[in-house]
Amino acid sequence: MSLDALFDPRSVAVVGASANPAKWGYWLASGALAGRRRRTVHLVNQRGGALDGVPFLPDLGAVPTPPEHVVVAVPPPQVRSVVVDGLAAGARCFTVITSGGSDPAEERELAALVTAHGGRLLGPNCMGVVDTTTELRLSWGDFPAGSVGLVSQSGSLALEIGRLLARAGQGFSRFVSLGNQRDIDAADALDALIGHEGTRVVAAYIEDFRDGRRLARTLTAAYAAGKPVLLLTLGRSAASGRAAASHTGALVSARAVVAAVCRDAGALLTESAGELADTAVLLAAAGERIGRLPIPRTDRAGGRPAPPRPLRVSVVGDSGGQGALAADALVSRGLDVPVLDEPTRIAVAAHLAGRAGGGNPVDLAGAGEADLRNYARIARALLEAGDTDATVLTGYFGDYATANPAQAGLECGVARELGEAARKAGRVLVVHTMARDTPALAVLREHGVPVYERIEQAATALAHAARLPCTPPQPPAALPRRSPGRRVADGAYESVRELLAAHGLAFPVAEFVTTADGAADAARRRTGYPLALKAMGLAHKSEAGGVALGIADEAALRAAFARMGAATGATRYAVERMAVHPYSVELIAGVRYDPAFGPVVMVGLGGVTAELHADTALALAPLTPGRARELLLSLRHAALLTGWRGAQPVDLDAAADALCALARAAVEHPELAELEVNPLLVHSGGALALDAHGVLRGRQVYGRSAVR
Amino acid sequence: MSLDALFDPRSVAVVGASANPAKWGYWLASGALAGRRRRTVHLVNQRGGALDGVPFLPDLGAVPTPPEHVVVAVPPPQVRSVVVDGLAAGARCFTVITSGGSDPAEERELAALVTAHGGRLLGPNCMGVVDTTTELRLSWGDFPAGSVGLVSQSGSLALEIGRLLARAGQGFSRFVSLGNQRDIDAADALDALIGHEGTRVVAAYIEDFRDGRRLARTLTAAYAAGKPVLLLTLGRSAASGRAAASHTGALVSARAVVAAVCRDAGALLTESAGELADTAVLLAAAGERIGRLPIPRTDRAGGRPAPPRPLRVSVVGDSGGQGALAADALVSRGLDVPVLDEPTRIAVAAHLAGRAGGGNPVDLAGAGEADLRNYARIARALLEAGDTDATVLTGYFGDYATANPAQAGLECGVARELGEAARKAGRVLVVHTMARDTPALAVLREHGVPVYERIEQAATALAHAARLPCTPPQPPAALPRRSPGRRVADGAYESVRELLAAHGLAFPVAEFVTTADGAADAARRRTGYPLALKAMGLAHKSEAGGVALGIADEAALRAAFARMGAATGATRYAVERMAVHPYSVELIAGVRYDPAFGPVVMVGLGGVTAELHADTALALAPLTPGRARELLLSLRHAALLTGWRGAQPVDLDAAADALCALARAAVEHPELAELEVNPLLVHSGGALALDAHGVLRGRQVYGRSAVR
Repeated sequence: MSLDALFDPRSVAVVGASANPAKWGYWLASGALAGRRRRTVHLVNQRGGALDGVPFLPDLGAVPTPPEHVVVAVPPPQVRSVVVDGLAAGARCFTVITSGGSDPAEERELAALVTAHGGRLLGPNCMGVVDTTTELRLSWGDFPAGSVGLVSQSGSLALEIGRLLARAGQGFSRFVSLGNQRDIDAADALDALIGHEGTRVVAAYIEDFRDGRRLARTLTAAYAAGKPVLLLTLGRSAASGRAAASHTGALVSARAVVAAVCRDAGALLTESAGELADTAVLLAAAGERIGRLPIPRTDRAGGRPAPPRPLRVSVVGDSGGQGALAADALVSRGLDVPVLDEPTRIAVAAHLAGRAGGGNPVDLAGAGEADLRNYARIARALLEAGDTDATVLTGYFGDYATANPAQAGLECGVARELGEAARKAGRVLVVHTMARDTPALAVLREHGVPVYERIEQAATALAHAARLPCTPPQPPAALPRRSPGRRVADGAYESVRELLAAHGLAFPVAEFVTTADGAADAARRRTGYPLALKAMGLAHKSEAGGVALGIADEAALRAAFARMGAATGATRYAVERMAVHPYSVELIAGVRYDPAFGPVVMVGLGGVTAELHADTALALAPLTPGRARELLLSLRHAALLTGWRGAQPVDLDAAADALCALARAAVEHPELAELEVNPLLVHSGGALALDAHGVLRGRQVYGRSAVR
Repeated sequence: MSLDALFDPRSVAVVGASANPAKWGYWLASGALAGRRRRTVHLVNQRGGALDGVPFLPDLGAVPTPPEHVVVAVPPPQVRSVVVDGLAAGARCFTVITSGGSDPAEERELAALVTAHGGRLLGPNCMGVVDTTTELRLSWGDFPAGSVGLVSQSGSLALEIGRLLARAGQGFSRFVSLGNQRDIDAADALDALIGHEGTRVVAAYIEDFRDGRRLARTLTAAYAAGKPVLLLTLGRSAASGRAAASHTGALVSARAVVAAVCRDAGALLTESAGELADTAVLLAAAGERIGRLPIPRTDRAGGRPAPPRPLRVSVVGDSGGQGALAADALVSRGLDVPVLDEPTRIAVAAHLAGRAGGGNPVDLAGAGEADLRNYARIARALLEAGDTDATVLTGYFGDYATANPAQAGLECGVARELGEAARKAGRVLVVHTMARDTPALAVLREHGVPVYERIEQAATALAHAARLPCTPPQPPAALPRRSPGRRVADGAYESVRELLAAHGLAFPVAEFVTTADGAADAARRRTGYPLALKAMGLAHKSEAGGVALGIADEAALRAAFARMGAATGATRYAVERMAVHPYSVELIAGVRYDPAFGPVVMVGLGGVTAELHADTALALAPLTPGRARELLLSLRHAALLTGWRGAQPVDLDAAADALCALARAAVEHPELAELEVNPLLVHSGGALALDAHGVLRGRQVYGRSAVR
């Protein structure tokens, strides 16, 4: 169902209109009236009155023509009857500002009433909707016009983002305040921004993700439509809300899942309103040019994806200190400030007149002050050379006319030249300056050059932009509607081992026994020595004395059995063949069922030190072998897998297959809230699960309540 | 020698004065004239002229009374004669702006001439000096007045910091541009700021550190004087400038050394001009209150220093989203946003009138909008309660009067109340708001409440301030003037082992042999089996096949010897008793001789994966055992040392003693550029050096040129 009636209705009625500037009804009514050139506006208030010469009608029944879009700002008890009247009057879209006084069930029922009539409902408890391209302003506060579309679960944050954009010469194309999302939700609103011609960059502040996989599909669709998406959410500090029932639970936070989804869907997760605004400004100004940058992000020669080449940035500083600090800010955010090619150095040095050479950073050492046109000459030389993808100008530019008004014309002319040079070269130019709000900066912005007050803003925006993928992201796989097989009985090692083995994961030869005699017999018949003995029914066997490794003979086995029985009181034991592999690496692999995104696979450097290393990578399940390899190779310690300092490389394909098998098992068994293999021993000849357990949904971890 | 003549001379002469606003001579002359109420000002230009009614004298000989401070802005060839004339005229202080045209030797000679006459020289090639408390403005550009003292090696950066401070309502007490530091250097200038009554916060931008230990002593003196120091430097991105000759070389960057020195001297190392300005604003406003916060940073009960308690922050947000994003920004920077005590929750909820409860973050949910006085009431409740150390107000405050001018008086009154509440409670209040440059924000700043445009600025400033130590830092130990013992012959294992063993480090029993027969004999007589065989003369023995561990008998020893000889061509071998310890941890310990700071000790998680983990801690050598323990316990993986998940803890005292011994050896042998023990095996019974080597200064690493 299209949202045209939301963003560009032929007629609007504001119910609860007011002439009192302290009231919401005033802002909605005066905002609606601002669009009178484009659409019919009706104002409704049962107590009468008028605003700007427009009399308030008593109710929607008195509206002479059908109001396509009705904005509701009446006390809670009246909302329902206003909606009923609106439907009767032929309205197709409702924006319900009113908050409080109704329970979720009533709100859902109201939304159902509207959709049953073929209409749509925004809210309730929202801040309204703005479309600056259609002169629609049904909200409170300033929403500067620009090319950023915003969907937000917080009105205050939308105001803040608007202020930051306005100070940078940008603003909103559309703004949708989601409120309680009883009908129109985040994905609906994002779809409407993605398809909107006037929107170049899509931004979203989302607190709860609901159907996360649908949202992920929306994000991949945005990429396909050429609209970069910037996401802001909460939860870097939030306690997880429950005790972690496994390492996986402790290592997979809701925020980390969102970060992984964004990475794989080609969206950019930001950490603050400021970061979001700064990056939006860059993408709106130069998004296409960033997308066109020839960055070969994946080079699969040799069968292994190369890490993406970082964005290469040239820096021009008014002083050596500022240039070097800019380089520091860029490099510490993962960007490259490379040595320039010889021809580029020569081209730059030609304008420096014997001043410090054409290194990177380029130190102007007074060349800009001596002749403002040198800024344009040097920037053009760098932008056209092609040995860097983007250029950062840092220092004083934009303030010369403040101290010397005679330079105003020249400075603005140079600003224009800078913008034209970047556009012509098809590369990105960014300016950091100590100037603020000068005419030259306005010219820069008009010509597609973002201007920042602090070098870290410029560096952060470039670093975010550089993370946009070069190849279209894949939408996440759909999950099966229901579990095809029989449910797992519990999360104990035996049950989980059986499940995972059936999905193709390799385990050591093992037998489960209850007595020392049984153990000795299992060793003779099945495992041989050395073997491992493990007590069953304990979450953390190692600490409890429930694991004995490298048992060499039957006497040692019997001694270990007796010791372990006394220490743990366990009634059941696994006798397992010892896995002995030189050059092996212990990984941890797990799946956590996220309430919004479903099963999420985690792999990390593992064993007992998994939480200490905190080196993990996540992706939505199921996995392809290629994605599984990428996850493995994205670990900070990935070098341990590929032959670190003389060691043999591990069998990456086997490791990837093991992850895929684990993911498959989790997808088919949604009754498992968590599923974990730790350690997953990967070595040059394969991958072997040395221990495993699960947590049923709504259950505590088998045998105890939580990891710690 | 005091710098009074630099900052508050009774008379100033500007040589090279000009009436042309495009010239430095104009700015210096007009700046000097601005202080005419306080001091005599002479302007000198051999070509005559006048400025502001003051005629230019032809030379310093024509100045009627002795000019105490002479500012030199003449072409390079004339500088020396101006200084000679000035000394003859009785000048005691020279600020030489002039750059270029003289070589370092000439500049040093000029400085020596001045100091031989009992005078001081700033520069050459500097941007001058400003003291806003004495109306001294001998520089170019705006230097807003305030309480931040700045020493800078870059004039541009000083201008940028000044702009940022001015936008936040702060400015400079003193500014010293260091230039080429031929006499007055960074430590001199810092000393002058530390002792200056009008300076509350000291800031420094330093590119080269020269006598680093003197600088470290200056920083500890600043702490003792109650002046927090903020440092900005380069080098987060700089290549180290030479191939690393050991793991230690690769792991100890110049920047990391500065960071360790700052930490131990109680100074705050910042990453950008913006961070520096934001933190300076907070410290200038509330520095004393931060210093008085009752944060028990070291609790040595149980014999182990507890990690410092993080600063506890309460957050008040106009909306839930802004409050939560603020909490995220604070927590991700290491601060704590704790659950409030029950009485505090009740006190806060009393002003929320049934709106969302008194959690932390406190969600005003319209309570501020409903009555602006609620901001003050709720902030006061939090500030007085004492269960948090600081309060952050985030959202809209300061902008109510913009939309509704009738609220101007009330909003400014509330701003005053907020400042008074914080001062009275002796705690810190910080405001983040989407407002900019409104009267209420000016009132907040006047009353000691820093105001930030972005929540990350507020969080970063608080996080820096929270790192100020609660107990006085110790100045670094002085280094011996010369090496007392005999120099180490080379960096090979045998030599270094002998040196370190003499300093008390434990090594396995070993014998050095050249033949297989010799090895077998050594095993029989000295080491027994199992043993380790190592080829000598290789930097990276493991990769070269030069290490065989766990050799069980003579046959295996002879086989390993033959294989190793073929693989490495080594002519000398160590036969060593195998170290077998359950629950051991491999550390790396090293010392690097830093050109500015002398020997620096590094300890980290070690073995072959040291560079992958990159988990290291640094401190200047020599070390006390207490400091060595602190370094060990500051590692990210410190939990491995203290009994991780059922393992026995290692002998921390032995590990600390080993670090002290290593540091002592390096201090006594400055001929060693690098010294390294890797691995240093620490276990429950002690610490054992399993391998060691060194790099002589000016030499390549023994046997090959670099690590990689």
